[in-house]
Amino acid sequence: MTKYAVIMAGGVGSRFWPRSRERNPKQLLKIIGENSMIVDTVNRLDGMVEKKNIFVVTNRLQREEIVKQLPELPQENIIEEPFGRNTAPCVGLAALFVERVEKDGVMIVLPADHLIKEKDIFQRTISKGAEFAYEKKRLVTIGIPPTRPETGYGYIQIDDSSVKEDIYKVFTFAEKPNLTTAVSFLESGDFLWNSGMFIWRADTILTEMQMFMPELYKDLMTLKPYLGTDEFASKLHLMYGRIRGISIDYGIMEKSHKVYLIKGEFSWSDVGSWEEVYQLTEKDDAGNAVTGNVYLENTKDSYIYSPDKFTAVIGAENMIVINTPDALLVCKRDMSQDVKKVVDHLKFHKVGEFL
Amino acid sequence: MTKYAVIMAGGVGSRFWPRSRERNPKQLLKIIGENSMIVDTVNRLDGMVEKKNIFVVTNRLQREEIVKQLPELPQENIIEEPFGRNTAPCVGLAALFVERVEKDGVMIVLPADHLIKEKDIFQRTISKGAEFAYEKKRLVTIGIPPTRPETGYGYIQIDDSSVKEDIYKVFTFAEKPNLTTAVSFLESGDFLWNSGMFIWRADTILTEMQMFMPELYKDLMTLKPYLGTDEFASKLHLMYGRIRGISIDYGIMEKSHKVYLIKGEFSWSDVGSWEEVYQLTEKDDAGNAVTGNVYLENTKDSYIYSPDKFTAVIGAENMIVINTPDALLVCKRDMSQDVKKVVDHLKFHKVGEFL
Repeated sequence: MTKYAVIMAGGVGSRFWPRSRERNPKQLLKIIGENSMIVDTVNRLDGMVEKKNIFVVTNRLQREEIVKQLPELPQENIIEEPFGRNTAPCVGLAALFVERVEKDGVMIVLPADHLIKEKDIFQRTISKGAEFAYEKKRLVTIGIPPTRPETGYGYIQIDDSSVKEDIYKVFTFAEKPNLTTAVSFLESGDFLWNSGMFIWRADTILTEMQMFMPELYKDLMTLKPYLGTDEFASKLHLMYGRIRGISIDYGIMEKSHKVYLIKGEFSWSDVGSWEEVYQLTEKDDAGNAVTGNVYLENTKDSYIYSPDKFTAVIGAENMIVINTPDALLVCKRDMSQDVKKVVDHLKFHKVGEFL
Repeated sequence: MTKYAVIMAGGVGSRFWPRSRERNPKQLLKIIGENSMIVDTVNRLDGMVEKKNIFVVTNRLQREEIVKQLPELPQENIIEEPFGRNTAPCVGLAALFVERVEKDGVMIVLPADHLIKEKDIFQRTISKGAEFAYEKKRLVTIGIPPTRPETGYGYIQIDDSSVKEDIYKVFTFAEKPNLTTAVSFLESGDFLWNSGMFIWRADTILTEMQMFMPELYKDLMTLKPYLGTDEFASKLHLMYGRIRGISIDYGIMEKSHKVYLIKGEFSWSDVGSWEEVYQLTEKDDAGNAVTGNVYLENTKDSYIYSPDKFTAVIGAENMIVINTPDALLVCKRDMSQDVKKVVDHLKFHKVGEFL
């Protein structure tokens, strides 16, 4: 059994504006720690997945920077989607690439922009899930035991009689809940956070796709003969121009009866907002996290990022200040979800230079 | 009787950082309205003081920009102080220049960075004060009837039996009061705001200087023969290197018995902080005053200045954001006096590029 990694790196991370831009989105930034999130994601596979077996699915705008950040990956493993079409087409496309190398290769599907701390527990979890997925031909999803009634994540309900140590049959997928529901999820004990990480054999997922997403499957089969040819890019462009954007959760995971869950007992966050970055970053005694040339006066519980220019902050509380060469964000911490609205505004007014 | 204006333009206005810099201080900026404050100050004299009779006292760093902004003034009327030494030496120096042209010329001493709205009332007040100062050889100060218990201004107490319409004998000068004192000043009716504007004959102020600041007077008399010669600058440099910085208020006005006050019944502000700029600027329905390319979300009662770069503000209340090409200020409105501390910090750490 050979393990392949498929890193989904097409997202823009618009909630990290103005640091994240179309050409330099969240997963390519050093948001927490020394490395970009995609470099951390690749490093986390060290010793478990060979570099030649790591695929990255991205888009044209990000390709150059990804090649620069991950020079150890074969360039032909950087798969370029012509447009974003959500996760189902992305997974299907990657499955074609893996299947071409090894029909029953096990695909470990990972978002490029998640924070995971304990590499050893992560690898043990993945390996166990890969074994199960390989032997039983099942779809395995990684569920994170919730530590708080989080309303920003989707949940997965399991049958709590495990079929194997730490592996459970999945009952249902639940959308992001309201707080009351999130509290009841947390109390029930059989709801886990949907991490968006999946493990399956290439042939298994294509079979499931044939059953639950027959149109996409047909398109993929039409595309398949062009893999590795000069015509591939134009055929892919045509196909992506036609297909609908559907998530793998909605398209397959919520419908298939082969879905299992393995518990990920490592620290995990999807780092979905500046507020989460603030929470995950080390603070000084006044609760401030500061990067760059910054002067603070009477300021507390704030996140200030100003690596290039001098920034003075006086009397701020619970604020986020992101000062980049051409654009500035000043945001109350508990409104950091609204940063997305700035990007929507810029798109609507076609102010491309700040996107 | 000829009127001369002496515009004191040596200040840095450090409370307007990061817009005000050593080379581009408050009086040279367009902080409110279409013109810089010094241009407004000169325009306010139109029809009352001839351009050739307007002197500006400044320093080397600001000279070039002043000449550029005020091309209609004779270049030899821009007097360069080698160092700032507070207002008494500045006034004495200007008195030498005026006295050389006309011994009993009336000097109207004006700060370059005040906001005054009604030009006609201003000119009527000045003219009346100038007549009194000329005929009676008195020191006339302009007092502003207070409209609120302001703790940011100095006060002047008058003898409320006027000696002439709107002209009063001065009892005492009072430093910036605390709020309780400011309230009692306001209620008493005989305390006025010290505007820092003065009117006197050149020979009168020099006579008073001889009596109350004999050392400075002696220095000025030693300097006098060099006026208009090549040696003047170096002699002035030597003298300024030696003398103490003393305000004209402390050095003469608080001691002389010749001090009178004329009431200035025009709108006046010394525009001492970003908070005052906010108060004096027109706001939208949410109480925001915005300059530049700015996106606001859930933001109110704030002042946002970002002419060059794009700025997004989310969830801010009562904030000041000043976004300049190389430095940023984010400040709670009621702490805008502390902006000075940023400049002190930069000086202390010798970060000259942002000063």
